[in-house]
Amino acid sequence: MTNMLSLLVDIKDKYCVVVGGGKIAYRKVRMLLAEGASVTVISPEVCSEIEELSKNGEIKLVRRKGMEEDFAEAFLTVAATNDSQENRRISQQLKSISLVNDASSYEEGNCQLPASFKKGRLHLTVSTNGASPKLAKKIKEEWQHTYDDNYIAYIDFLFEVRTLIKKKSLSPEVSDAILGEILDDAYKESATLRHIYYEKLLNL
Amino acid sequence: MTNMLSLLVDIKDKYCVVVGGGKIAYRKVRMLLAEGASVTVISPEVCSEIEELSKNGEIKLVRRKGMEEDFAEAFLTVAATNDSQENRRISQQLKSISLVNDASSYEEGNCQLPASFKKGRLHLTVSTNGASPKLAKKIKEEWQHTYDDNYIAYIDFLFEVRTLIKKKSLSPEVSDAILGEILDDAYKESATLRHIYYEKLLNL
Repeated sequence: MTNMLSLLVDIKDKYCVVVGGGKIAYRKVRMLLAEGASVTVISPEVCSEIEELSKNGEIKLVRRKGMEEDFAEAFLTVAATNDSQENRRISQQLKSISLVNDASSYEEGNCQLPASFKKGRLHLTVSTNGASPKLAKKIKEEWQHTYDDNYIAYIDFLFEVRTLIKKKSLSPEVSDAILGEILDDAYKESATLRHIYYEKLLNL
Repeated sequence: MTNMLSLLVDIKDKYCVVVGGGKIAYRKVRMLLAEGASVTVISPEVCSEIEELSKNGEIKLVRRKGMEEDFAEAFLTVAATNDSQENRRISQQLKSISLVNDASSYEEGNCQLPASFKKGRLHLTVSTNGASPKLAKKIKEEWQHTYDDNYIAYIDFLFEVRTLIKKKSLSPEVSDAILGEILDDAYKESATLRHIYYEKLLNL
């Protein structure tokens, strides 16, 4: 719990294995597919949602128990069977050689998949280290209000100003002053002010 | 930017390499050390802060330019020289074989190190995908107020209740009802109510 580095990892087309076929396995599969991973599910039995993904060709499905060679090449393995001992066994086996998440214990394995909130350029995550997945979900819902469409447009403005500054090759001092100035709440609140500021900067 | 999976990764004692010796390199080194990584810095010249870390034996310092063999065994490499072309070269070389973060571009490399907020069991992260590191810092400061000491104690309460439920082996229906019930704001607000609830549960 104490030594966890947060990373955003590009997993597009990376080979990821989910062991287990229940609802929890399905949720993890969805998280991985959303980021473009190449997902293989290994389980003797699977829920209808996973069955459906397999039929649609969105995942590869292997109907048997997981075996050592299944994980050897995986970038990330999720141990999500309904048997916590089995999950633990997989985690222990893999934790020194590759990324492994134990769905039945936040302390086993060597990585966690925190709840993720994405809107425009903003990417927030929340983990309660095993305290309450329900609270994590609630916090995400609160963020939906706090970081509303206007806020996201404000972040786009910050990005555009930053890009423009780089293009204009302004001095570090001037750049830094501008990047500090636009953090003022006035720009967060008013799309008009943002527009005026950007136009002014264009003509600098 | 679109295909990033958020992970919390245990990097205790993992071999991590930071190429570059300036302030940005130093900031990354600190993030890695905070999570217990084994850090090697590679740079012909370094700032006084990195010099100090080396003197104290907290990092290994190699005073020359980075070479291919330096990164071959690394779990994570951070390319943070003051030459964005050099950073890009390192990122391109490593992105298919290991984790690599390009400090001069959020689009190169295959992972980002988002700003991290930790308090008790709560671990939040924020990335603006290159829009504004200053805003990310500001959001972290706001979280410091939103998730105050009482909130963190509330999360501890959620954890204790969840642990107790597991110990008592209650039915999934009863467990789920309890875990939903304690999300009520009343328990977030009152330490007394939390105490009463926990005592009642103990005697269930």
